[in-house]
Amino acid sequence: MLNQSARLDLAYQALADPTRRSILAQLSRGPNSVSQLARPLAMSLPAVMQHLAVLQGSGLVRSEKVGRVRTCRIEPRALSLAEQWINQRRIEWERHFDRLGEYLETMNKEAQSHGHSE
Amino acid sequence: MLNQSARLDLAYQALADPTRRSILAQLSRGPNSVSQLARPLAMSLPAVMQHLAVLQGSGLVRSEKVGRVRTCRIEPRALSLAEQWINQRRIEWERHFDRLGEYLETMNKEAQSHGHSE
Repeated sequence: MLNQSARLDLAYQALADPTRRSILAQLSRGPNSVSQLARPLAMSLPAVMQHLAVLQGSGLVRSEKVGRVRTCRIEPRALSLAEQWINQRRIEWERHFDRLGEYLETMNKEAQSHGHSE
Repeated sequence: MLNQSARLDLAYQALADPTRRSILAQLSRGPNSVSQLARPLAMSLPAVMQHLAVLQGSGLVRSEKVGRVRTCRIEPRALSLAEQWINQRRIEWERHFDRLGEYLETMNKEAQSHGHSE
C-alpha cells in the first residue's frame, strides 16, 4: 500500500503530460477501449500504452480485459485526492487573507480612534 | 507566454514532490522568507533553493527581494488553474454517471411496461 504522499506524487506526475490529460479528459466522458483512446492521438499504439501504464500506476485509471478488449475507466477517488490537496491549500491561503484583512481593519480603527489624541 | 497546457505541465510537475508540497503548504499560511521555508526541511539551503526555483518556474510561487531578505508567496491563480482542470474532469465524469443512471432507469421502466405482454 502506498501512503498518501506517494500517491499524490504519482497522480501529479501522471497529470503533468498533455497526452495523459487528454486521455483523462476522454475517460471523464465515459469508459473507453484502448483502441478508442488511441484513435484521436497522433502517436503509435505502444506510446499510448506507455501513457496508459503511467496513468494506471498512478491509480487515476483502471482497466479490465473482457475477451480481447481492454476497457479503461477513470478512478474518481484518485482524481479527488489530487483535487483536494490543492483545494485545501487554496482554502488555507484564503483564510490567511481573511485574517490579514481583519487585522488591518482593527489596526485602521485603532489608528483612527487614537487620531484625535495624538 | 506559456499556453495553458504548458502551464499545467509545469504546475503538476512542481506538485509531484513532497518537499515542494510541504513548501506550498507552509506558504498557504502566509508569505515566508527563504530561511523560514528552509528551517523545517531536512536538507541543505541549495537543495531548498532548487525546489523553490521549480516552484517559481511553475508560476505557483513568486518571490521578491527587499534588502537582503527574499520573501516567497503563493500565486493563487496558478494554484486555481491546476485545481480547476481536475475539478472539470470530475464534474464531467459525474455528469456521465448521472446520464447513465437516467438511461438505466428508462430501460428498467420500459422492461417493466413490456413485462405483462411478453
